[in-house]
Amino acid sequence: MLIEKGTDKAVYTVRVSLDDNPGVLGQLFLTIGEAGGSIGDITRVGVSLTQTTRDIDVLADNANHLNRILAEVGKLPETRIHGVFNHVEEMHRQGKIAIQPKQKIRGISDIRKVYTPGVAYICKLIHGDPTNYPKYTYVRDTVAIVTNGTAILGLGDIGVKAGMPVMEGKSLLFSTFSGINGIPILCDTKEPDEIVWTVSHIAESFGAIQLEDIAAPECFEVEDRLAAKLDIPVLHDDQHGTAVVVLASLLNVCKYTGLQMKAAAIGIIGLGAAGLGIAKLLKAYGIQTIIGTDLKDHAKQRLEKLGGRPVDLAGVMAEAEIVIATTGAPGLIKPAMVRPRQVILALSNPNPEIKPEEALAAGAAFAADGRSVNNALAFPGLFRGALDAGAKCINNAMKIAAAEAIAAEAEQGDVVPMLLKEGLHRKVAERVERMAFETGANIRKST
Amino acid sequence: MLIEKGTDKAVYTVRVSLDDNPGVLGQLFLTIGEAGGSIGDITRVGVSLTQTTRDIDVLADNANHLNRILAEVGKLPETRIHGVFNHVEEMHRQGKIAIQPKQKIRGISDIRKVYTPGVAYICKLIHGDPTNYPKYTYVRDTVAIVTNGTAILGLGDIGVKAGMPVMEGKSLLFSTFSGINGIPILCDTKEPDEIVWTVSHIAESFGAIQLEDIAAPECFEVEDRLAAKLDIPVLHDDQHGTAVVVLASLLNVCKYTGLQMKAAAIGIIGLGAAGLGIAKLLKAYGIQTIIGTDLKDHAKQRLEKLGGRPVDLAGVMAEAEIVIATTGAPGLIKPAMVRPRQVILALSNPNPEIKPEEALAAGAAFAADGRSVNNALAFPGLFRGALDAGAKCINNAMKIAAAEAIAAEAEQGDVVPMLLKEGLHRKVAERVERMAFETGANIRKST
Repeated sequence: MLIEKGTDKAVYTVRVSLDDNPGVLGQLFLTIGEAGGSIGDITRVGVSLTQTTRDIDVLADNANHLNRILAEVGKLPETRIHGVFNHVEEMHRQGKIAIQPKQKIRGISDIRKVYTPGVAYICKLIHGDPTNYPKYTYVRDTVAIVTNGTAILGLGDIGVKAGMPVMEGKSLLFSTFSGINGIPILCDTKEPDEIVWTVSHIAESFGAIQLEDIAAPECFEVEDRLAAKLDIPVLHDDQHGTAVVVLASLLNVCKYTGLQMKAAAIGIIGLGAAGLGIAKLLKAYGIQTIIGTDLKDHAKQRLEKLGGRPVDLAGVMAEAEIVIATTGAPGLIKPAMVRPRQVILALSNPNPEIKPEEALAAGAAFAADGRSVNNALAFPGLFRGALDAGAKCINNAMKIAAAEAIAAEAEQGDVVPMLLKEGLHRKVAERVERMAFETGANIRKST
Repeated sequence: MLIEKGTDKAVYTVRVSLDDNPGVLGQLFLTIGEAGGSIGDITRVGVSLTQTTRDIDVLADNANHLNRILAEVGKLPETRIHGVFNHVEEMHRQGKIAIQPKQKIRGISDIRKVYTPGVAYICKLIHGDPTNYPKYTYVRDTVAIVTNGTAILGLGDIGVKAGMPVMEGKSLLFSTFSGINGIPILCDTKEPDEIVWTVSHIAESFGAIQLEDIAAPECFEVEDRLAAKLDIPVLHDDQHGTAVVVLASLLNVCKYTGLQMKAAAIGIIGLGAAGLGIAKLLKAYGIQTIIGTDLKDHAKQRLEKLGGRPVDLAGVMAEAEIVIATTGAPGLIKPAMVRPRQVILALSNPNPEIKPEEALAAGAAFAADGRSVNNALAFPGLFRGALDAGAKCINNAMKIAAAEAIAAEAEQGDVVPMLLKEGLHRKVAERVERMAFETGANIRKST
């Protein structure tokens, strides 16, 4: 059983039959673990008189690594490998989302109500009074997920088509967590002008716009101009979704470590979309001292315009009590650079700037990587709350409310809650909605 | 019980309790019929020892008319009115469609497959080989339904927001009849340039483009330019969906009347989107003599460019063996203008150019109005077939194949099949798909 393709870290589903004797399953897991495989879901797929067949998700570094794991498993006496499946591939076949009618058509009378001639009555209701628009259409539940394909995950500029699976994934999470219809819109241009122009012309189709995986610095201009132009919420998730979750994490970290966040010096390494988004939100939250660094001068200038202070990498590590890294450069932070009692969030995925265990060993008070800081904690509730309020924007107060709601849902000792925690996204949405009303975001736009 | 709003023909749902005695239900229907109400679905909603409660759909000319009907019903001894509901309004509340995940999220492992980090593997598959794009995304099932709100139903230029319920209705039918995800795209501009530009920039998001309720003459330019520019099917439904159903109808009418269609003179009254679309398809089908008329000179010139001959209204009625009217002008064709053995399709909705019974009384061999010629007979199968073939266009041969498939599904004596006929849309799709391959539409564009 040899896997031929795959040079990247991936989850493979290995189907095995095991004799029903004590210790057989345990021995299998020991073997996989000793070969360096990480075990995910285990699903029982078949039971016979003497054997049980299970699908075991195994995370391996690449196909060669998986083959080494399988070779070891193959040596076990009471275990038989049936095959290896790529469930990731299966789960993406023909896409991950679909439009479904909310009304079942039982006969021609139903069609005459939802389509011509009945629908004309609803068209007239909206034409006569545009406030009927969100009442009688799906728009108040609907968010465009707009990308131009220039910064897809950590893969960079791979084009809009290759970015579609991420947009569909986002849509799936929107639907699962907050009942929002996320519509992938691939905008095939790198010109901010053209993106703004295109999205403006179709904006009436949606209740809000989520910008996604658009490279810096274009993302800043696109967001600012669209937010100024449109009367619905516009939010670049790579900036603000990430920022909300970082703020939520810091609220808990500071609670656990006793650090006074507003008085602390916070250093940001990497001032791309995520880094600058974090700087903006921390500033809005009331952090006095924000320092930061980036290889690009224009990125540093942007920080300065926000009221932050550009320094170099050594400067950040020397001065900051809280260090947040979003560079995409694995291993950038050496253990020797870590100062005692520093808080370090090394967020680059899949490989962080410094591994949490290394940072802790070097004296950090707290350390985490990007696995826990998942912006899917924020965006479903953030948009749901904004839509429910009929908000014209998602202002900083709403983002901070989301961060506080997320932080409050974490279990004691955790910095953020589980993504699938019951009621989490609804609670975030409720806090955001309330804050939208309190800040008048349903009446006017503000930052 | 008085209904206060509604000046238009509408379906009201009247809830009544009737004593369980013979003749009570019959008497109720007689009363409604005598008062001029037309009865639709009847649903039993409650049963007690001595009474049955039913919801009865009643089509009335307006609210006053309904009130007159209710007054008559109120006089019946064993019948009690509970209330009147507007199901049309209820069925539109919060919209008629929603995005649904095709994958259920059971735990974090599932999220790591459909979203980060697992999704990166799929992104790379598509980036490495773009032919993977339709395999691993929802695009091959997805059609943009694009309108600019300038010709919504017969209501005219009521704007994109008021047009949304129609686009959602179309999406609902797409999903119900052929498993297609119809995404409403409201393009808020009247400039053909801007529509073409906007749709081109987002076209990668979709497997095909359906243009909808865009006013003539802009619709012609928008369709031609988009079809030339994009490598996916682009079809203006008001032109070609209607044309396909008209051709299907004529195939059966000619079978029943013995008329030789290709040799017949066909006259088209009203050369807007529908009229010109019909002229284009009949020309492609092989009709030699097409005459037509319109109030606008540029419309007549368009017909001439297609090889048709512009005449006046009297000329059409005097010369044509088959008359097709798409003017939006009720009663335009007077009985005195009808010639013996003419075939007359008076398609304007809701009120035709001449009522079928009047046309028949005046000597027509066959007459129908727009109720039977519903373009929802065509578009679900037409797009499904084109998408399944991976077609780059919907050419005339594919439209004719759809018309033939629709015609073949009509019951003996009917000109078109029922919209909900089992298997209809699948059969249309199969014929269209086959024709796409036969004409090479999966390889190159043609008209």
